[in-house]
Parts: sequence; C-alpha cells; structure tokens
Amino acid sequence: MPIQPSGAAGVKGTVEVFEDFHPGLKDLDGFSHVILLYHFHRSYSFKLQVVPFMDSELRGLFATRAPRRPNSIGLSVVQLDKIEDNVLHIRNVDILDGTPLLDIKPYVPEFDAQREVRAGWLEKARKTVSCRKSDDRFK
Amino acid sequence: MPIQPSGAAGVKGTVEVFEDFHPGLKDLDGFSHVILLYHFHRSYSFKLQVVPFMDSELRGLFATRAPRRPNSIGLSVVQLDKIEDNVLHIRNVDILDGTPLLDIKPYVPEFDAQREVRAGWLEKARKTVSCRKSDDRFK
Repeated sequence: MPIQPSGAAGVKGTVEVFEDFHPGLKDLDGFSHVILLYHFHRSYSFKLQVVPFMDSELRGLFATRAPRRPNSIGLSVVQLDKIEDNVLHIRNVDILDGTPLLDIKPYVPEFDAQREVRAGWLEKARKTVSCRKSDDRFK
Repeated sequence: MPIQPSGAAGVKGTVEVFEDFHPGLKDLDGFSHVILLYHFHRSYSFKLQVVPFMDSELRGLFATRAPRRPNSIGLSVVQLDKIEDNVLHIRNVDILDGTPLLDIKPYVPEFDAQREVRAGWLEKARKTVSCRKSDDRFK
C-alpha cells in the first residue's frame, strides 16, 4: 500500500458504483479530481496514540492519517481519468483492493485547497512521502 | 448556513471532542488546518440528481456537495486556531450547530491539495461562493 495518493502517483485503479446509484454520476466527468470516502474495512480497532508511517514518535491519532480510527473512514483525493457507465477510472490510488466506497465528492479548489499551511510533525516528512510505502504497523 | 468553508471566511466555531478521545488530539495543534468529517444529521433522504446551490440545472448528486447523500457524511476543511483541552477552536465554519463529528484528520497539502484542477459545472460558479448562502432546497 502506498502512503497517500501522493505516494501512488500514476497508480491506476477503478471504482465500481452500484448500478442503482448510476444516475448520481452525471456531470462528475467534468471534474479532474474527486474525493473518495471509504471504509477502512481491514481496521478492527484503534489506539489513541500511534507511531505513524514516516515517523518514529508517538502521535495523537487525530494528528495522523492512520487507518485505525474510532470511525474507520478513509479519505483520498484521486485523479479522475474517465467514467465508463458505472466505473470510474482513477489515478494515484492508495486504497486497498476491495475497499467499500462510502461517498464520492467533487474536488473543488475553492472548498478543499488551502494555502499557507502548517503541517505539524509532518512538516519535515511530507516531502518524502512519494518514495515511501506502508509497513505492517497498522495490520 | 454558508456554502462551504470558503463561504464562511472568518466564521468561528468550536469542536468538542469527548473526553475519552482527548489523548488522540496530541500534536494536532501543530497543524493550521484540519479536515472534519461529520454526519449530515438533518438529512434524511436523498435524490440521485439535484439542482445544487450555485446552479439552476439538474446535476448528478456525486458531482455536487449537497448534504443529502446515500451516506450522509459531510467534509469541511477548516482553519484550526488553537486547542484548549478537548475543544478545537476553528475558523471558516460552514457546519450546522450540534452536528455530530465523525473524524478529525490533519490537512496535509501533499495529500490533499491538487493543482491544475478542472471543476466541471462548478467552474463558473465557484469563484462567487464566498458571497452566497444556502437556501431551503435541501431541508
């Protein structure tokens, strides 16, 4: 598993949307990026402080993107290449195969992009994320 | 209700985290922005195509940020001013009072910010969001 979409640059995947929800995909192909919310279905428990990927210190869980959380909801911003019927072809995929999808939202810079950001303990590590992979610590 | 955090620039609010989860907030104060996931608790049903705020045409639900969705999960990127005990003081709040919180994630530009984005039907409207408010259409 890559760590975050930025660690999965170019990795292609597909999102299958149940046929019943197909009408809800109208107009989505106008967006270059989408936000996927999904269930961390392999995460069965959590600790409130963890040593995250890209670090060696104990951090508050809510200051990390670790998959084991009180509400096991994952979030990834991925590139949308095209939509064929009920299948989204996406890129920059850091999500396990078979992960249950909860929601798709269009990515809108005015809503979702921030400038002048401080990223706490991740400030040093975040620039190296593209060459790191996850290990077994959250299995 | 403002439409999205960008329509609520400067609006202050608080997030109360249950005491039990307090240890999970460690290190979060190093981040200037956080992603809040919450339950759209006033949304009881959904339609797969809607006329969104800022538009007059019927759009696929998943190409909108409308609150009535199959999984009623809301997402806002807000500014984090400070944390006092179990209370987050936040800014740019577009969230209804009393909304149940599902998760807090740190906002990390390398993970969450995208450049060279196409925003479909919102391309024209998104620049005016800061001066718009919601109406009754999703009540």
